Amino acid sequence: MESERITIQQTALRLLDMNRVVILCHRSPDGDTLGSGYALCRALQSLGRQARVACSDPVPAKLTYLAAGVPEEDFPEEHVISVDIADEALFGSGLEPFRGRVELAIDHHAGHRCFAGELCLDSGSASACEIVYEILLAMGVPMTPEIASCLYTGTATDTGCFKYTNVTPHTHRVAAALIEAGCDFKTINKVMFDTKSMAVIGLERAALNGLSLYRNGAIAVITVTREMMAQGGLCEGDLDGIAALPRKIEGVEAGVTIKERSENEYKVSLRTSELLDASDICARFGGGGHARAAGCSFDCPPALFLDKLLAALNEALDSAAAEHPEELHMKKWSVS
Amino acid sequence: MESERITIQQTALRLLDMNRVVILCHRSPDGDTLGSGYALCRALQSLGRQARVACSDPVPAKLTYLAAGVPEEDFPEEHVISVDIADEALFGSGLEPFRGRVELAIDHHAGHRCFAGELCLDSGSASACEIVYEILLAMGVPMTPEIASCLYTGTATDTGCFKYTNVTPHTHRVAAALIEAGCDFKTINKVMFDTKSMAVIGLERAALNGLSLYRNGAIAVITVTREMMAQGGLCEGDLDGIAALPRKIEGVEAGVTIKERSENEYKVSLRTSELLDASDICARFGGGGHARAAGCSFDCPPALFLDKLLAALNEALDSAAAEHPEELHMKKWSVS
Repeated sequence: MESERITIQQTALRLLDMNRVVILCHRSPDGDTLGSGYALCRALQSLGRQARVACSDPVPAKLTYLAAGVPEEDFPEEHVISVDIADEALFGSGLEPFRGRVELAIDHHAGHRCFAGELCLDSGSASACEIVYEILLAMGVPMTPEIASCLYTGTATDTGCFKYTNVTPHTHRVAAALIEAGCDFKTINKVMFDTKSMAVIGLERAALNGLSLYRNGAIAVITVTREMMAQGGLCEGDLDGIAALPRKIEGVEAGVTIKERSENEYKVSLRTSELLDASDICARFGGGGHARAAGCSFDCPPALFLDKLLAALNEALDSAAAEHPEELHMKKWSVS
Repeated sequence: MESERITIQQTALRLLDMNRVVILCHRSPDGDTLGSGYALCRALQSLGRQARVACSDPVPAKLTYLAAGVPEEDFPEEHVISVDIADEALFGSGLEPFRGRVELAIDHHAGHRCFAGELCLDSGSASACEIVYEILLAMGVPMTPEIASCLYTGTATDTGCFKYTNVTPHTHRVAAALIEAGCDFKTINKVMFDTKSMAVIGLERAALNGLSLYRNGAIAVITVTREMMAQGGLCEGDLDGIAALPRKIEGVEAGVTIKERSENEYKVSLRTSELLDASDICARFGGGGHARAAGCSFDCPPALFLDKLLAALNEALDSAAAEHPEELHMKKWSVS
């Protein structure tokens, strides 16, 4: 289907007209979908409207502050909107009842597959929270410290704390405004980017022990098994940083993290340098995401999947090498 | 001695009046002192003035882009200024000839010990580069991509890529302006914050193998020996990220990194949480720095020094516990 594209201003007007709103977040929720969802929920409630956030999976322990103090309202919903959801396939089982019922989607994924009546999409935005920030400004909602903390969370987590290539001047200006509005960026940064448990440190070490390098070190693959997680008493929510690990290794253009979720069910995170489109590659395996960070799933033996993924990565690296020979063969991340 | 405090505007006027300028950077130079120095040097040269950067130690390999394309000018200096130098003790032996001769110091260290005739100090600024950015604006210097890359480097490196508690709205606004001016933030971030060699990964692992925890895990100490560095073929410039490692461990309030420089010569990096003033503690051992990141040196057996440091840290933690019992005993970095 096609969605009608609407602007920030139009989105603000739509929202100001709504009451009894359910805000959908994607499954395996992260800081951006929940930050956007709870910011919008708090904003609507501050205007006296009934609103609630709905997600197939529970809020990860690290992110529970996003929902702190938000009354869990039960009401017959009149409006269904979604935030940071690129595809109905990412609803998860808990949101099945809402399929085909979303009237407004707010998103920043370039590969968004339309499922809502109206769509406010800015694929140049590093996070959905940056878009929600503009919408709340247009709605005239007072920016409380709590709303600012929700929006800062997605702004920071979707950019690796302003480190990734998706950052724009707008990202930094939004962060400046959110800090001025009193967001607790010091604690958020400490928790999200600067704290590791000894268990996670141990798991990273175990994952690096099993590191495999391919194509002269341009492709790095690590695997996290359920056994490794059980040894450290860890759950999937504890592992959000690990996907960034293999791409950090000098010379790596494609970093692959394979996580075992259950028997023969695996989740893959792909992080790439400027030369490869991670979203394109994951789309071949039924997944998606962003240009530098995407994911997919598989349910066959890992070696079988890895063969196919390596073939796809090699092909993509061959094309990149043909187009940018100097980049791949000579540039070792020196700043020009 | 006392320095005369002057404003950004006055500093700009002073600089516009100067020619044949030597710009001093502190020893063991980092992204902020060199970013400030080369930004200012490029700016003065763009105005047709003779200028050069002087530092006791060579520019680390990772930072050579700061100086790329800057002509090394030899001239009899008429003016000596310093950037990001908190104390003449940080000149290093190569800058001995300039002692007592600095007419203008530009700095952001709260513990600045005056040594220059005039001082442009903003201790609320996360980096010296943020101050130099304002000075260049006031001078009316066109912000080239090269100058912007110099200034972005210090802005990012002194804040752990906008992660540390010294970040202000101004920090983010300066970053936004520098990205708009064409700084190569994507490569800079990749090199500074998102790339590790296998040798550094191995050294971090070895350092963590020797991790010692004290006071119920509130103090973490790691040691990097010359042998560990030699094994990986690493030099001190490769290790700028390692000092952040021990404080990252959950529950740690004070992270200590001891680096062996030569026989019986050690450098200490102290990183603290909000509860402890790292600069105060390092000052007791003849060092200094910032509230959350400071350093000092010692030349006795490490166990002897560590005893004294642990005593100082325990004392500081006792005071913090008395003042903020809820922080130290109950708050496990949950976001309020």
